[in-house]
Amino acid sequence: MRDSYGAGEQAAHDIMRSAAERLGLEVSIDAIGNLTMTLPGRDRGAHRIIIGSHLDSVPQGGNYDGAAGVVAGLCVVSALKGAGVVPRRDVSVMGIRAEESAWFDIAYLGSGGAFGLLDPACLSIPRSDTGRSLESTLIECGFDPQAIRERRALLDPAEIRAYLELHIEQGPTLAAEGLPAAVVTGIRGCKRFRNARCVGRYGHSGAVNRRHRHDAVAATVALLHHMESIWLQQECAGADLVVTSGELFTDPAMHGPSKIAGETHFVLDVRSVSDATMKAVATEAREAAARIGAAYRVTFDLGDTSESPPAVMDSRLRASLMGLLERPFEMPSGAGHDAAVFAKQGVPTAMIFVRNENGSHNPDEAMTLDDFAVAAQALIGLVLQEAA
Amino acid sequence: MRDSYGAGEQAAHDIMRSAAERLGLEVSIDAIGNLTMTLPGRDRGAHRIIIGSHLDSVPQGGNYDGAAGVVAGLCVVSALKGAGVVPRRDVSVMGIRAEESAWFDIAYLGSGGAFGLLDPACLSIPRSDTGRSLESTLIECGFDPQAIRERRALLDPAEIRAYLELHIEQGPTLAAEGLPAAVVTGIRGCKRFRNARCVGRYGHSGAVNRRHRHDAVAATVALLHHMESIWLQQECAGADLVVTSGELFTDPAMHGPSKIAGETHFVLDVRSVSDATMKAVATEAREAAARIGAAYRVTFDLGDTSESPPAVMDSRLRASLMGLLERPFEMPSGAGHDAAVFAKQGVPTAMIFVRNENGSHNPDEAMTLDDFAVAAQALIGLVLQEAA
Repeated sequence: MRDSYGAGEQAAHDIMRSAAERLGLEVSIDAIGNLTMTLPGRDRGAHRIIIGSHLDSVPQGGNYDGAAGVVAGLCVVSALKGAGVVPRRDVSVMGIRAEESAWFDIAYLGSGGAFGLLDPACLSIPRSDTGRSLESTLIECGFDPQAIRERRALLDPAEIRAYLELHIEQGPTLAAEGLPAAVVTGIRGCKRFRNARCVGRYGHSGAVNRRHRHDAVAATVALLHHMESIWLQQECAGADLVVTSGELFTDPAMHGPSKIAGETHFVLDVRSVSDATMKAVATEAREAAARIGAAYRVTFDLGDTSESPPAVMDSRLRASLMGLLERPFEMPSGAGHDAAVFAKQGVPTAMIFVRNENGSHNPDEAMTLDDFAVAAQALIGLVLQEAA
Repeated sequence: MRDSYGAGEQAAHDIMRSAAERLGLEVSIDAIGNLTMTLPGRDRGAHRIIIGSHLDSVPQGGNYDGAAGVVAGLCVVSALKGAGVVPRRDVSVMGIRAEESAWFDIAYLGSGGAFGLLDPACLSIPRSDTGRSLESTLIECGFDPQAIRERRALLDPAEIRAYLELHIEQGPTLAAEGLPAAVVTGIRGCKRFRNARCVGRYGHSGAVNRRHRHDAVAATVALLHHMESIWLQQECAGADLVVTSGELFTDPAMHGPSKIAGETHFVLDVRSVSDATMKAVATEAREAAARIGAAYRVTFDLGDTSESPPAVMDSRLRASLMGLLERPFEMPSGAGHDAAVFAKQGVPTAMIFVRNENGSHNPDEAMTLDDFAVAAQALIGLVLQEAA
């Protein structure tokens, strides 16, 4: 367990740091604890390449989520050194802090903080287990919350030529396709109706006929089924989209086996690499809720959406990576990654996924070293093209 | 609150009994507390007519559910007496005990017990509020649990010419139709999948594409939506049917806004006056669950059904009642009634519904005396035809 700003994450940082020192890299730690390990280039003023990922994990997480990307970075610089290549520009490996939101209920603390993007209010967020605020946790670790309070930028996006991240897929696509690695097209954004509700009227399941019902379950089922058909339409039209209702429930204090349900609560989570697709689907959800609500004599209140815009990967870097894979394959990333933060800062960004068995965010995450090597070699090739 | 075998129900029995005594009726109380108030006929050996309903209510119930039917019976015999009619056969008014399952988790204690139909195991059911068993509660009230233990029949169905019950509708149909009363065609049976379940696999809502999902919510939505289309088909074909899922929920310990749901629990409640319709719909539910489960890569376990067969009202009595209404209207009963117990014992049975505002099983139940009079007058007419 590599807890954000905790003993587990620190142990991972210590291991990476000592490996870097053995390789003779320059090591620095920024105000909020991000670790940077640099192979100096011939031109120290040239814009550098960063290969990074995070070193924390969710509770009960696996070995590879995040950490594999930092190890990959060290493999790349080790390979360059081993081959006697002195790159033209600096190549840095970054061990990023606290990417997971499991510990402080905010994602991308390390990368967001590095660019001075965090709302200083986040300093009062308590860690989910210890209850101690981010601020006191940072101080305890010897870091400086003042950097967050001042929104101080510790990295200048204009001075980064490329940000590259290797990460396990966290989904079943590569395993199903029988492929070791994939180039990421973009990181899906998310438009989420977090607190959607349907209000009808409770009634006797036997005594109320269809045309007198105000059945919240029937209406919610009709809406969610309609949204699945919209998904299928979008898919047929070639759009990238996933639509999920992962929480759906009648009220346990009020529902009953012989009652028509008077209320449902549900989540509708819409994700795509295309902002336009997400907007179209969310608009359709609101229109359908009004239409279906009227037909079923119930009221939908979808509430506000929480928004996370998609992050597009750099097309030139994507094309280069594709050229470096023996079996080139592209796919979107459904989960968020530090790469999204870099991309949104305008840094040309690329990601490569490694096949992962048994899902992610669980102790059974699995990755073979053969698959890892396929992805790491593509990274080496890309760095040679970009930095040599 | 007229709690079954409690002070509230007893107070209602006392009021009815003293009214009966003022009318000069013969009063008897059977071993389990059912109250029978009889206007003697000319031929004491002739099969009698019973007009009855229950005197208990659910917690937070209204004034009319059940009690209105006993009052109606007393109105009928009072009218006969007032008009100087001595019927050919006995006309009994029955105040039935404990129809509601709210107190002892079993319905029809009074009418079922009167026919010796109760499983003696029911004697150990605790009352939901006091926790005291049915057996000790009966003893406390001065009744005799031995009758239930011996499955002793206190009534002989062969000696009852007709059982008639007036009851508030407990649904919105008459209010919506603008009609005071309706003749009941039958009491819907119920085939209920009480513990249906869908098991898929939890996953990241962004990282797993449609064809790799095992989405329990999507599959359940597809099944329930399909069952609604089956309902519509049956309705178009003229069948009586209601289909309800009043409980539907993902697992609050496992679900999450950014997770694909790995499990749902739901109820599927199928009701009709036709056994064949219920069977066809339940069979379709099982077939659809297998088909949809395969398509969505999930497993449905619909579990066993609980069964309550429909009760058909006597067609001759139904026709007579229809002839006695100024605005004849027929409809099924969705809720259960003591009349179902009598009908299933082969007693020719009829029911008349009175319009009811504001739903039932709540304190706002409402019935106008004008509507009650329409139904009670039809009952008087029927009793005159059957007993004069």
